[in-house]
Amino acid sequence: MTDPRIDAGRLLGRLKALGDIGRDGDGRLTRLAASDADGAGRDAVAGWMREAGLEVLVDRIGNLFGLWQAGAEDAAPLMLGSHIDTVIDAGIHDGCYGVLGGLEVVQALREAGARPARPIAVAAFTNEEGVRYAPDMMGSLVYAGGLGVEEALATRGTDGTVLGEELARIGHAGPHEPGFLRPHAYLELHIEQGPVLEREGARIGAVENLQGISWQRVTIGGEANHAGTTPMSMRRDAGHAAARVVTFLRDRVSRGNSPTVATVGCMSFEPNAINVIPSRAVFTVDLRDPDEVRLRAEEVALVRHLDELAEMEGVTISVERLARFEPVTFDAGIVRLIEDAARRRGLRCRRMTSGAGHDAQMMARLCPAAMIFVPSAGGISHNPREHTEPADLVAGAEVLLEVVRTLTQGPG
Amino acid sequence: MTDPRIDAGRLLGRLKALGDIGRDGDGRLTRLAASDADGAGRDAVAGWMREAGLEVLVDRIGNLFGLWQAGAEDAAPLMLGSHIDTVIDAGIHDGCYGVLGGLEVVQALREAGARPARPIAVAAFTNEEGVRYAPDMMGSLVYAGGLGVEEALATRGTDGTVLGEELARIGHAGPHEPGFLRPHAYLELHIEQGPVLEREGARIGAVENLQGISWQRVTIGGEANHAGTTPMSMRRDAGHAAARVVTFLRDRVSRGNSPTVATVGCMSFEPNAINVIPSRAVFTVDLRDPDEVRLRAEEVALVRHLDELAEMEGVTISVERLARFEPVTFDAGIVRLIEDAARRRGLRCRRMTSGAGHDAQMMARLCPAAMIFVPSAGGISHNPREHTEPADLVAGAEVLLEVVRTLTQGPG
Repeated sequence: MTDPRIDAGRLLGRLKALGDIGRDGDGRLTRLAASDADGAGRDAVAGWMREAGLEVLVDRIGNLFGLWQAGAEDAAPLMLGSHIDTVIDAGIHDGCYGVLGGLEVVQALREAGARPARPIAVAAFTNEEGVRYAPDMMGSLVYAGGLGVEEALATRGTDGTVLGEELARIGHAGPHEPGFLRPHAYLELHIEQGPVLEREGARIGAVENLQGISWQRVTIGGEANHAGTTPMSMRRDAGHAAARVVTFLRDRVSRGNSPTVATVGCMSFEPNAINVIPSRAVFTVDLRDPDEVRLRAEEVALVRHLDELAEMEGVTISVERLARFEPVTFDAGIVRLIEDAARRRGLRCRRMTSGAGHDAQMMARLCPAAMIFVPSAGGISHNPREHTEPADLVAGAEVLLEVVRTLTQGPG
Repeated sequence: MTDPRIDAGRLLGRLKALGDIGRDGDGRLTRLAASDADGAGRDAVAGWMREAGLEVLVDRIGNLFGLWQAGAEDAAPLMLGSHIDTVIDAGIHDGCYGVLGGLEVVQALREAGARPARPIAVAAFTNEEGVRYAPDMMGSLVYAGGLGVEEALATRGTDGTVLGEELARIGHAGPHEPGFLRPHAYLELHIEQGPVLEREGARIGAVENLQGISWQRVTIGGEANHAGTTPMSMRRDAGHAAARVVTFLRDRVSRGNSPTVATVGCMSFEPNAINVIPSRAVFTVDLRDPDEVRLRAEEVALVRHLDELAEMEGVTISVERLARFEPVTFDAGIVRLIEDAARRRGLRCRRMTSGAGHDAQMMARLCPAAMIFVPSAGGISHNPREHTEPADLVAGAEVLLEVVRTLTQGPG
């Protein structure tokens, strides 16, 4: 065989092409899970998989796979993957880089006439972002057995749609049972989505663990009343109580140098009228911490605050758990392989914790797993200004290629 | 003539019938200005006006009038009015009581064969609530010359509609120029919408002045970023900044025993996704105070807070003024007539300030004006649990009837 080489033009070209699918009139990229735009993106990726000589397979939750048997049908496949669904007004690299980077690695190996000792599968998991349907990382969660496929397919979205119906509508409800390909190991290439690598001048992140995530929806019930005639002391203002929770979370996690992060991303008031005291406020709380004990402590502190607030403000408060994942530790052996590959290519590498949730945390339930990060300019992501230098995108794919070669070597 | 008498059954029956117009599937009453429901309500009121023998007239901004010339065409009419548009999920008395109470008074006088020395007009003003189109009290504001009719008709609503087009669509864009009936005096019968009368065991409120109102829309611009990977110290969270403003306003106006009230009734986040730091927050601020100097001071304090916040949180903040009305003092002579009428009927009466904005504050620019309040159970309004005892509704109409008789007596 010849020495396999990453085709930078092909990789960057596909990232650009996929990033052009799902733009609105103002050029904003939004490719929510199981939407028409997601369907168009999936069709493009499946086409490239076939172009690379891979067999395209879809499971019941819509996870899309490109499989290269490589004449080693009996061995468990090495899986490379991520997702192609996006948040609202997104960048083009989040998730897509892992799918198209994995595809580029397999295509490079095939074109070089490589004979891997095991099949290699490229995976695009359904609904990783969780914007339209909760929980996030749903496709890989179902694939790893953490959530029943029927329950997942019945999930109702923020727009009232049902995931199963939407997957069928866009033609990506496949026949295979989630988990049908049992991986030997799982690797995910991803942009950091944080500022650490750039700040420290590192090109490659060898991700050794991942933060725990707690998602909750809080509903506060107060009393609608007239904004002009109701004395402040007699108000039961659900909107004001919600604001107190937002400032409480910020003040608490900002103190000292706790690694906990807390975000209130969704907020709505009812009746949402300028001259009516809000009778109802609904908002989400996203809590993350690499340490499970500390994450639990933050959840408990929130519950205590909500109890005090309900008492003090005369409001009712109910909490619904939307998602909860413990911190994950990746495979130490694969993390070392990533460091070695980066070192041999003269790329400054740093071990790190992933602040974001990724499909790799679900796949780690099934097999040894790890992630490779590349720098995000300014640490910005989930934003159209998300950017990674082309040279870094190519370097990450080259490190992945080398790790894949090591993990698919035959005996001797 | 016989002694004119309020027909309690007719008044309460019409209030109930009008309150049944604009119910949704869950029985919630919402009759926003110039909506289909508002059109149906206007048609019902116009029908009752004709039934009472009044001439129905509509002006260009949709204000609806029932005129009884009473053979006194040359004299300026006494005007009795309020509004029939509602907030979202409203009660049935707010506004409607003033329109139907005024109509009941005129009908009672006609049926008793009264010969008033001047015409009497019953008015239902357009868009008093301001929920769909800002500013509130728009119809009476335009009628009193405080806002140009063309500008008002061009107002775009929260749902993107244009008021003038909606008025034409529901058939209530009339031919008359706002202000075409120049009133001799204006009287408005209304539920208190506050807890004062009930708390003090008074049946009638003689309203001698009205709070100033300041409505503003605040837009905060931050930076959308990943909820898991962005350190708290590096965030520019528009949602968190908005929450700070809500708690600032509450803390400020709740201190001491300031009569100022502050309400944030509308709030929205963008992109409004659970795992994305909000890039934009838009909310409304409703500030009210019976003293203009103190109201200005509160507006200035808010501006200062927003400037500090923008600096501290690294966000941009812009403020748009939606409405601004100075406190209003009503006609002392009419207020005395209200007290006298209540006393003669053995009804405990209290002079008071109106915490709410009312069409009367606009009409006070044109002619002597005053208001009559009846108790609101629990001070609740802008809420389906808004309630006033039938006996109080009838008592208020009887006081209005007596004041109208005094104001329409002939010479000698």
